[in-house]
Order: sequence, then C-alpha cells, then structure tokens
Amino acid sequence: MKRLLTSIAATAMILSGPALAQTADPLPSWNDGPTKEAIVGFVEKVTEEGGPDYVASADRVATFDNDGTLWLEQPMYTQLAFALDRVKALAPEHPEWKDTQPFKAVLDNDMKTLAASGEKGLVQLIAATHAGMSPEEFQQIVGDWLEQAKDKRFNRRYTDLVYQPMLELLSYMRDNGFTTYIVSGGGIEFLRNFSEPVYGIPPAQVVGSSIETKYEVVDGKPTLLRLPEVHFVDDKEGKPIGINEYIGQRPIAAFGNSDGDYQMLDWTTSGDGTRLGVIVHHTDAEREYAYDRDSTFGRLDKALDDAPAKGWIVVDMKKDWNTVFPPAQ
Amino acid sequence: MKRLLTSIAATAMILSGPALAQTADPLPSWNDGPTKEAIVGFVEKVTEEGGPDYVASADRVATFDNDGTLWLEQPMYTQLAFALDRVKALAPEHPEWKDTQPFKAVLDNDMKTLAASGEKGLVQLIAATHAGMSPEEFQQIVGDWLEQAKDKRFNRRYTDLVYQPMLELLSYMRDNGFTTYIVSGGGIEFLRNFSEPVYGIPPAQVVGSSIETKYEVVDGKPTLLRLPEVHFVDDKEGKPIGINEYIGQRPIAAFGNSDGDYQMLDWTTSGDGTRLGVIVHHTDAEREYAYDRDSTFGRLDKALDDAPAKGWIVVDMKKDWNTVFPPAQ
Repeated sequence: MKRLLTSIAATAMILSGPALAQTADPLPSWNDGPTKEAIVGFVEKVTEEGGPDYVASADRVATFDNDGTLWLEQPMYTQLAFALDRVKALAPEHPEWKDTQPFKAVLDNDMKTLAASGEKGLVQLIAATHAGMSPEEFQQIVGDWLEQAKDKRFNRRYTDLVYQPMLELLSYMRDNGFTTYIVSGGGIEFLRNFSEPVYGIPPAQVVGSSIETKYEVVDGKPTLLRLPEVHFVDDKEGKPIGINEYIGQRPIAAFGNSDGDYQMLDWTTSGDGTRLGVIVHHTDAEREYAYDRDSTFGRLDKALDDAPAKGWIVVDMKKDWNTVFPPAQ
Repeated sequence: MKRLLTSIAATAMILSGPALAQTADPLPSWNDGPTKEAIVGFVEKVTEEGGPDYVASADRVATFDNDGTLWLEQPMYTQLAFALDRVKALAPEHPEWKDTQPFKAVLDNDMKTLAASGEKGLVQLIAATHAGMSPEEFQQIVGDWLEQAKDKRFNRRYTDLVYQPMLELLSYMRDNGFTTYIVSGGGIEFLRNFSEPVYGIPPAQVVGSSIETKYEVVDGKPTLLRLPEVHFVDDKEGKPIGINEYIGQRPIAAFGNSDGDYQMLDWTTSGDGTRLGVIVHHTDAEREYAYDRDSTFGRLDKALDDAPAKGWIVVDMKKDWNTVFPPAQ
C-alpha cells in the first residue's frame, strides 16, 4: 500500500510540478472562467493582510466531502464495493449467508434485492465486514483491498480515481494557510487508510461515520475492538455536528457534491464574514459520469436548487475541469 | 479573554526565552535527574535520524491529560467550580432550585450533600449549566468566567494555574516534531476555550468528554444546540477509544496523573517500538498539593502501583520541578 500510494503522490507532483512552473497557475486543471475566479478570489480575499476580509490562518478551516467531491462515487460508493468484496471473501466461513439476506443478494450479484434491503441491509453488511477486529487489522484489510481492487469502467485502482482539480485545490488552499479536512459520510477508519498519501490530509484531519469501539485487555495486552454498532453518522445534519465535535471550529469554506452536504454548506456559509460554498456538479458522462437529482449515490437536488440563493458556486465538471483524473502511469 | 490569554502567552515566553538563551535548556523548570533524563532521552532517541528508535514526525503523537497534568485540579476540578458558579448565577431564573437537589446543595455551599448526589447529581449540574445554548454562546460564557474567576488559595485566575514545566515540555516536544494533543475527561468545548492561547494546542487537537449536539435551522439560520445528554465520556477506557476516534493513531507518548489515565498510558506504552508513559505525582503540599490514593479528584492508586512494572516515569513534583506555576504578573 505504502509503495502504491507513494507512486500516486509522485504522479500528482509530476503532473502539477512542470505545469506550475510554466504557468505559475496553482490550479492548472481548472479552466479559466467564473468558477475558478470565484474560488481564487475567495482565497485571495481572506489571505490579504490588512484587507477587509482577512482571516487569520488559524481560522482558515476548509472542509471537503469525499465521495463525489474528491473521488469517484459511481457506479457505487467505493466503500460499498469494498464491503461487497469482503462478503465474497468471507463467504466460505459463513455457509449460512447463501440463504440469508442481504448476503445472498451480494453473493448472487443481485443488486436489486440488495438495494431493497435498505439501511437495515447496509448496517448488516457493515457489521459483517467492518467489525470484529482491531483498528490496525481493519487498516491492513482495507490497505490490501485498495492495492488490488480496480474500478471496472476505468480499469484503475480506486485511489487513482481521485479528481486532479481537487488535488490541486487542496494543495493550493494549504499553501495559503488553510487547514484542509475531509468530512465524509464514509467510514472514518476506511478514509484514514489513504487520506494522507492520496490527499495530503493526515488521519486526525478526517471526520467520518464510525462504529462503536471497545477497549479490552487480551492476554495482558490493551486492544481496541471494532463493534457491529453504529456510533456516529456523519451525513446531512451529522456533518455540522461532526465538524463541531472533531474540529471545534466553523469552517470558512466547504466543498460538497450532494444533498448530504447541504447542512455543512449552509452552516459554513451562514457564518459571519466572507465564506465559500462549492458544489461539484457531475456533468461529464464521457470523462466521468453525469448525474444529480435521480442518482442513488450522491443525489444532488435541493442543494442544486438553493445554490444560487445561497451563493454557492456550482462547478460544472465538463466545462470547468480540463482534466478529471491524474494521468495513468 | 483574548487579551488575558495573550498576556499569559507573553509571560510564558518571557519566562522561557532568556532562560533558554542562557542555558540552552529547553526545560529550565525541570531539575536535572533521572526523570528529566528519561524524558529528554526518549525525545532524542525517536528524533535521531537513522537511529534504531527513529520515528517519523507524522507518527510523533503525544497525548496529555489536562486536570492535574497540565493545570490545577484541587480542591476541585476547575470545570466543576465553573458549574457551581453557573448554578449560582442562574439561580434567580430557577426558584425551584432552592428546594431541589443537587442545586440546593450548591446554593447552600453544602459540598457533602453535593458529593453524595454522585454521578447522577453531576450529570444534572452539567445539563443545567452546559446545555441549552449554541457552542458559540457556551464559549462566551466560559471565556467570561475564566476572565474573572479566581482560585481562592492562590488568588489567581485558573488559566494562570498551569504547570510551567509542562508548558515547557509541550513546546519542547512540538519543537521536536511532535503533535501535542489534550486527552481529558473534562468537557471538550470547555477545554477548547483556552487550549490554544494557554497551551498552544489548537481546538482540533483537543479530545474530551462531550454532550449531544443538535442541528436546527432557526429563522432560516443554521444553528447548533447543546443538549442535556451525555455523548461521550473521555475517561479511563474512554481515553484510548477517544484517541482512536479523534486522532486515529496510537500515541508514542502519553502524560497523565491519575487512574483515569491508566488505559491511555497502557495502550500507548504497549505499542511497538520506543514509548514513553509519564505520571505527574502531586507531592508538593507547600507549592501546590500532595495527594494520590485517597483523593476525590485525580485519584492515583493502581497506576502508581503498576508504574515500575510498566516502565512509566513518575514525576515527583516536589523534587523534579523547580517551578510549579508561571510567575504572577
């Protein structure tokens, strides 16, 4: 995993390095236009010392959703793909799954029945695949999977299917004294596996959903055990609550792509002073996907309607990004 | 509050600045001897590039308990003093408190009855004094209180009653590439009020106990509301669980002073590689307090017994510290 991720980081640097030197543009994958201007304008305003919109570096908190904002979320959340693969890998130890839903649906590749199992089914999948081991063991399992699993359409590893313009934006904001956080509905420990090598975001700057954890001493050795119970859901109202709990500050900039980010965007941009709310709108069926109001994953409806009135910037992926993914190696 | 805290920070710098220049000792308030040697030796080992015990900066995570480790916790936790003062301040709006426990005990200064109300009474006090407002309003209340409240014995503000040797240690570790975290049984939002100006620890690097928070939109404005329900207790087993959840990494060094820190110390020091566990033992009745096994606040019993076998360093406050608090201004 370490090697794979180092090579991803190197690619990102190779890509942005020469481009940066040539154009002095920290966001070369963003086309010129009002979207890029709005983002750069915001950063310049809050970093202009003595300016009316200046914000001290300690208060430059920027939060980023992950699925659909920093990386691919179609045809399903990557973490769900992980859970399905884990069910298949663990199936030999669980002969009863052949006749028990939602496991039978997973083993039969019957996505319709799986979807019908709803949140209850999802919680059962998470319990069976994400719990019953220590955080260290879970990291190992996730790391091994990310190293070999590939998205079928693009035939690339999931950690390669991150958005190059957003990688540049993360670096650009950090270079301007921002602290960048992931605030995702995805699992916090799943995200922490790759957030640092892929996004430059250390584990402690990841906020996500979590299951309960138990402390126990086994054979004299203190251990943590992941339990099959939901602890916190970092989605919708959960995002401002999670930000308040983990970060302890209201962000001045928030980036999302779905209605699950609505409350984070609203809470962020309704604070005093200059604020930035950005929605990544997936409009590019050719290079990535085009979806919004009717999507199972990353549904974007109310936030799209309210964006103009709220002053949120809507990124038109097709128009605003000249590159979507980092180049294949 | 800002002004007060800036002046505290300035004092700390004035104190350590010239001493540092004179002696090149980053820990001037620590007397020479095995305790200081053990701490400095650990830091030197893990920062020696190419050495057998080298730890990359990203993994240099150090966690510090607060009450009794970074600041005074006698004759009662400062946050409890805050809660008692709040009950008195709010009493005119709650005439029923005159006849309701544990409030009556607080208003009568009847500490014996208050203590007898136990955890249930404490939760009632927290609910009445820490909930029902936004995090921002709570910050204002805490800030105002810290600015005027004083400890009776020392006649100083609580934020002045921090341990100068520990301030030096925090700086020393950060100067050596450590990230320093507070991991306290105290309230996370109470701590975040002063952690940065007093300890140089930003809000996002504070782990503590918390109550539930609710997101709601009031008159079109997104708001967070603190609820009178316990969310997480960051004490004993809660400390490793909280560290795993908020920080996402096992520390390589942990500092505590009571049995409430036992599990954090044990989990930290039982990891692979070189580790450091430190207990501050309050042995100085003259300059501060002397207490351990029988104390209501900061009881130190099992951790003191097990320290030698576990390899935890026990700081003898009287012997190891030549200064306890920063000088009065």
